[in-house]
Amino acid sequence: MHFLALCGSLRAASINAALLRAFARCAPAGIELRQSPSLGALPLFNPDLEADLPSAVRALHVAVAAADGLVIASPEYAHGVSGTIKNALDWLVGFEPFIHKPTAVVNASPRAHHADGALRETLRTMSAGLVDDMSFELPLLGAHLDEDAMAASPAVAGVFARVVEALRAQRELQRAADTPAFPLR
Amino acid sequence: MHFLALCGSLRAASINAALLRAFARCAPAGIELRQSPSLGALPLFNPDLEADLPSAVRALHVAVAAADGLVIASPEYAHGVSGTIKNALDWLVGFEPFIHKPTAVVNASPRAHHADGALRETLRTMSAGLVDDMSFELPLLGAHLDEDAMAASPAVAGVFARVVEALRAQRELQRAADTPAFPLR
Repeated sequence: MHFLALCGSLRAASINAALLRAFARCAPAGIELRQSPSLGALPLFNPDLEADLPSAVRALHVAVAAADGLVIASPEYAHGVSGTIKNALDWLVGFEPFIHKPTAVVNASPRAHHADGALRETLRTMSAGLVDDMSFELPLLGAHLDEDAMAASPAVAGVFARVVEALRAQRELQRAADTPAFPLR
Repeated sequence: MHFLALCGSLRAASINAALLRAFARCAPAGIELRQSPSLGALPLFNPDLEADLPSAVRALHVAVAAADGLVIASPEYAHGVSGTIKNALDWLVGFEPFIHKPTAVVNASPRAHHADGALRETLRTMSAGLVDDMSFELPLLGAHLDEDAMAASPAVAGVFARVVEALRAQRELQRAADTPAFPLR
């Protein structure tokens, strides 16, 4: 089973990107977390281009369609979502394989509640299979809160195990909903 | 006096873009509304690029700095801001000439309140000189709600006159705040 990680920051030293890479390193057995193609390569959303999708959009669609679920980590900029993550979601509105896709928003800055709330509202509107609130405080690992420290942290591994369980449960829920409750005649 | 129009949709047939062009055509005497460089030309925000800004970002900065105020019209996508308008604002966070700039968000779909509310929260956080709520229903002008029909509509001209007055008042307020209340010794 594999999940796709979407990062809403393009900064090389992004905490969210480091967290997603750390999650990938401490994935439970049988689970793979793949990083999505960079969301910075996407053009800004333009409905006029939907008839002949740019290649970066097609690459995102292929990656989303193939994944068993999505894990989103994104910064809050000026009490709002990052333009980068919202632009990526704008390209996924109405994309059929996205609908009911198990999706977790991991918010490592629970005080940054505006962006988290707005992302969750948008994902619900897009009919994502959104799992429960995944806000948590990153443990203080000293001055260097880097990928290695995060990957070595039992707290980070614990959060990712919780994310995986929630995505798995959402997937089962979806399967059950897709299965008729009694045999069709 | 001139204001700068920022459109959050890149669609050629965008209602918001048509509305901003119609506003420009029915501007009161002495007021000019200029369309900003296309926000679709901006790269996705990356703080790592702030030391050597891409030319499209510099062009936006120059246009914002020169304007006496901003008029924003933007669609709501999936109960959220458009990635395009938020990305443009991400490039303006902390840009000194933006601070206290008189700014109006014109919302021609008052039922689309999520994006309007999120934009206003972000603009307040960025210390824009945000004017009062400018939500209004576009008058039904028959099947073709196009730029010509809007520019000819007294209702649309009336809304823009209200926007201009609000921006002017905000500018005066700002000037008064910048002037010491009694002579400094």
